[in-house]
Amino acid sequence: MRTVIYPGSFDPFTNGHLDIVQRAAKLFDHVIVAIARNDAKGPLFGLEERLELVRQSVKSMQNVSVDSFDGLLVDYVEKRGGQAVIRGLRAVSDFEFEFQLALMNRKLNEHVETIFMMPKDTYTFLSSRLIKEIARLGGDVGAFVPSHVVTALRATLGTPVR
Amino acid sequence: MRTVIYPGSFDPFTNGHLDIVQRAAKLFDHVIVAIARNDAKGPLFGLEERLELVRQSVKSMQNVSVDSFDGLLVDYVEKRGGQAVIRGLRAVSDFEFEFQLALMNRKLNEHVETIFMMPKDTYTFLSSRLIKEIARLGGDVGAFVPSHVVTALRATLGTPVR
Amino acid sequence: MRTVIYPGSFDPFTNGHLDIVQRAAKLFDHVIVAIARNDAKGPLFGLEERLELVRQSVKSMQNVSVDSFDGLLVDYVEKRGGQAVIRGLRAVSDFEFEFQLALMNRKLNEHVETIFMMPKDTYTFLSSRLIKEIARLGGDVGAFVPSHVVTALRATLGTPVR
Amino acid sequence: MRTVIYPGSFDPFTNGHLDIVQRAAKLFDHVIVAIARNDAKGPLFGLEERLELVRQSVKSMQNVSVDSFDGLLVDYVEKRGGQAVIRGLRAVSDFEFEFQLALMNRKLNEHVETIFMMPKDTYTFLSSRLIKEIARLGGDVGAFVPSHVVTALRATLGTPVR
Amino acid sequence: MRTVIYPGSFDPFTNGHLDIVQRAAKLFDHVIVAIARNDAKGPLFGLEERLELVRQSVKSMQNVSVDSFDGLLVDYVEKRGGQAVIRGLRAVSDFEFEFQLALMNRKLNEHVETIFMMPKDTYTFLSSRLIKEIARLGGDVGAFVPSHVVTALRATLGTPVR
Amino acid sequence: MRTVIYPGSFDPFTNGHLDIVQRAAKLFDHVIVAIARNDAKGPLFGLEERLELVRQSVKSMQNVSVDSFDGLLVDYVEKRGGQAVIRGLRAVSDFEFEFQLALMNRKLNEHVETIFMMPKDTYTFLSSRLIKEIARLGGDVGAFVPSHVVTALRATLGTPVR
Repeated sequence: MRTVIYPGSFDPFTNGHLDIVQRAAKLFDHVIVAIARNDAKGPLFGLEERLELVRQSVKSMQNVSVDSFDGLLVDYVEKRGGQAVIRGLRAVSDFEFEFQLALMNRKLNEHVETIFMMPKDTYTFLSSRLIKEIARLGGDVGAFVPSHVVTALRATLGTPVR
Repeated sequence: MRTVIYPGSFDPFTNGHLDIVQRAAKLFDHVIVAIARNDAKGPLFGLEERLELVRQSVKSMQNVSVDSFDGLLVDYVEKRGGQAVIRGLRAVSDFEFEFQLALMNRKLNEHVETIFMMPKDTYTFLSSRLIKEIARLGGDVGAFVPSHVVTALRATLGTPVR
Repeated sequence: MRTVIYPGSFDPFTNGHLDIVQRAAKLFDHVIVAIARNDAKGPLFGLEERLELVRQSVKSMQNVSVDSFDGLLVDYVEKRGGQAVIRGLRAVSDFEFEFQLALMNRKLNEHVETIFMMPKDTYTFLSSRLIKEIARLGGDVGAFVPSHVVTALRATLGTPVR
Repeated sequence: MRTVIYPGSFDPFTNGHLDIVQRAAKLFDHVIVAIARNDAKGPLFGLEERLELVRQSVKSMQNVSVDSFDGLLVDYVEKRGGQAVIRGLRAVSDFEFEFQLALMNRKLNEHVETIFMMPKDTYTFLSSRLIKEIARLGGDVGAFVPSHVVTALRATLGTPVR
Repeated sequence: MRTVIYPGSFDPFTNGHLDIVQRAAKLFDHVIVAIARNDAKGPLFGLEERLELVRQSVKSMQNVSVDSFDGLLVDYVEKRGGQAVIRGLRAVSDFEFEFQLALMNRKLNEHVETIFMMPKDTYTFLSSRLIKEIARLGGDVGAFVPSHVVTALRATLGTPVR
Repeated sequence: MRTVIYPGSFDPFTNGHLDIVQRAAKLFDHVIVAIARNDAKGPLFGLEERLELVRQSVKSMQNVSVDSFDGLLVDYVEKRGGQAVIRGLRAVSDFEFEFQLALMNRKLNEHVETIFMMPKDTYTFLSSRLIKEIARLGGDVGAFVPSHVVTALRATLGTPVR
């Protein structure tokens, strides 16, 4: 059985993230969406809420589970018996940073492979940061995140999200 | 009549920004330089001062006006009857971020077009951030910003800008 | 009246090209699609055929005309009274080459401005080269080019294009 | 069982290619190295010789097979029951072209996924083109390709490869 | 005698930095590693400690000295009689920012040249930021920084660095 | 004494090349402009003519000499006692290819360092290829190449270069 780990902040989980999970779930036996517990970036949503938002998003997929981790990603991957880390690539700037991270992870643990997947072309412009900014300014993000995430954004930001 | 919006923080307005405005003013009937009121980045200059610095810089151009906005850029563009957003491109990293933003804006309002213009080659190294840093360290920024912006930087930073 | 020139080889004209023309036609009074007569790349379609394929593609747009040119682009733009050159940008590699070209053109004639537009996100993967390759291999290019271009590809390549 | 296709010209097969095959073979049940029969680029080695050079390189891996294809890659992938195409990424320029290709393939057949893998960092400078050029100039390519490929280069180029 | 300046935050000094110093020390008569005193980024290590960590790292090289500076880099270079600034390049994103900086420095003082050098390929993934993050999470950074920097990270972070 | 090699096709030598030579000549004791004899690209000017055009361009610089080479660049560098190869960088696409080449050269001979220099910002758009194309189309290239190169282009192309 092959298990892959899809790590991230998921603050919040977007349709772009969901698209990558769906693609990975077809190629591997088990996909673990792993939310970084590390709060350095000061996430909008707490860990529990992010876990819940991801769980609702992926509940229909039998071979996808949701978890959180702290410490080094490579240690978490080994602990869970993962063969590879999945990362979505949207743009050149993603690519460079992701490459650097993947090389570093390989140095830290040579058994942890990183594979890159490409989201649907209409999602290449999506980022959690941009979505939070639009929601804060009262923009309609219903096309970019699952509907329960729209509700959560509205509740958390207190803005009448359109 | 065709109106285009040139949005930004303009903290402060540079010769590179001025160059883009001059080029746009030849191609379109009306150019609105629109300063984002949003203070997330913690601008050096307050909104009123930035408005004033831009106004002085563009006062000789008949078809250029200066305004500020908050909320979503696409809503502002629609409210002002703008056909397009103008953005200056200097480098590959600009390009990627600007592309992502332009695609997102198109999703939010398909009637808002984004067009990209290229500043004079000798301004490709200019950024408001770099200019503030140089001025803070006492460097001479007279070649990079209009003279009244040099004066404003000197007054605000309290450094004997050369 | 403002005239812009959209130059290219258009070998063949794609839905991505058409998308850029439609966007430009909303922003400017007159758009001239200008086919480079220069055959250095050894085009699949002769100049006359390319002119005809573009004309059919844009015939419903009142303010778009089709022409060909040889010699320097900047000389042609001046001769036609154009204010700017339009170029579509899809990717970082486009950006770099286009930037170099635009700077060179500006050196050759400082009155010729270049402005960059972004095609629909679902066309970012399109290129004339890729379309010819797919058509040669018998692939279905009906989603990427106007239907009369599909017919022309089929006739020229002699392959049973799907 | 999950089958992935690793397509390319492999003219010739390098240590970088081999590295990608070894990584893919750990993550998937069956890896097919698929040599493009299409001779547009004018390969140095004929199809039969390239097939043989790859076969020798991968013979110790039980779940790797070698094949050739012509026509559209997506049709070949479907015919072989492949779930995904594997591509190695070394640099930003790779990334852009590969992304364009992967998006196009997805348009041609939405069931064909593309996943990107990263070779060992010491192979990021490797390309078949560069290796042929060095071998032609009499350089030692023994560190970059399997030893039987060194022998084949020497025989084909007639140069006393060091 | 030719003196070059290698400026940076060096927070902390890595094996990648050391590699660049060693390469520069072969090409120029005198290399000054110049630590920016400016604390805007909020360095982990104080200036004195960074100076000491660099000094220990380069003590075996006769023509390398260590210093700190504030104010404009170009003024410091002139004061020390430097002919050029050395910068390491790892990736495209480095390149863009470094280019912008180098052009700006040239505008500020046309006598200050910038030259770019490339670290060992196995160090292209290294960055001080990533190393601090890994050390904070308890990862082993012994392969990425000199051993006395490992000790300093352990002492400063209070984590049992592996 | 430190010798550096500035290799290239120089078909033809441009003001951008000259700018790099002038910068290198200030930093190193001896600069050798080394023209690749290899005619794979089918140069417009023969080797002898290119040698002559470069010689005329650099004759006022005492520490610059002109030579040609074939075979591997690293072998030539070693034969001439060079410490480093100089390369000009203009854009991201340059950077990637140059990096790949430099890493490969380092693998072939670890004693050959590559250093990158940046031409004057107004030359970032220059390339020999673009200059030949403009000259062929009858454009004025007098601002981009030394005057004797203008004369040579006119003579070789038989076009009334403006």
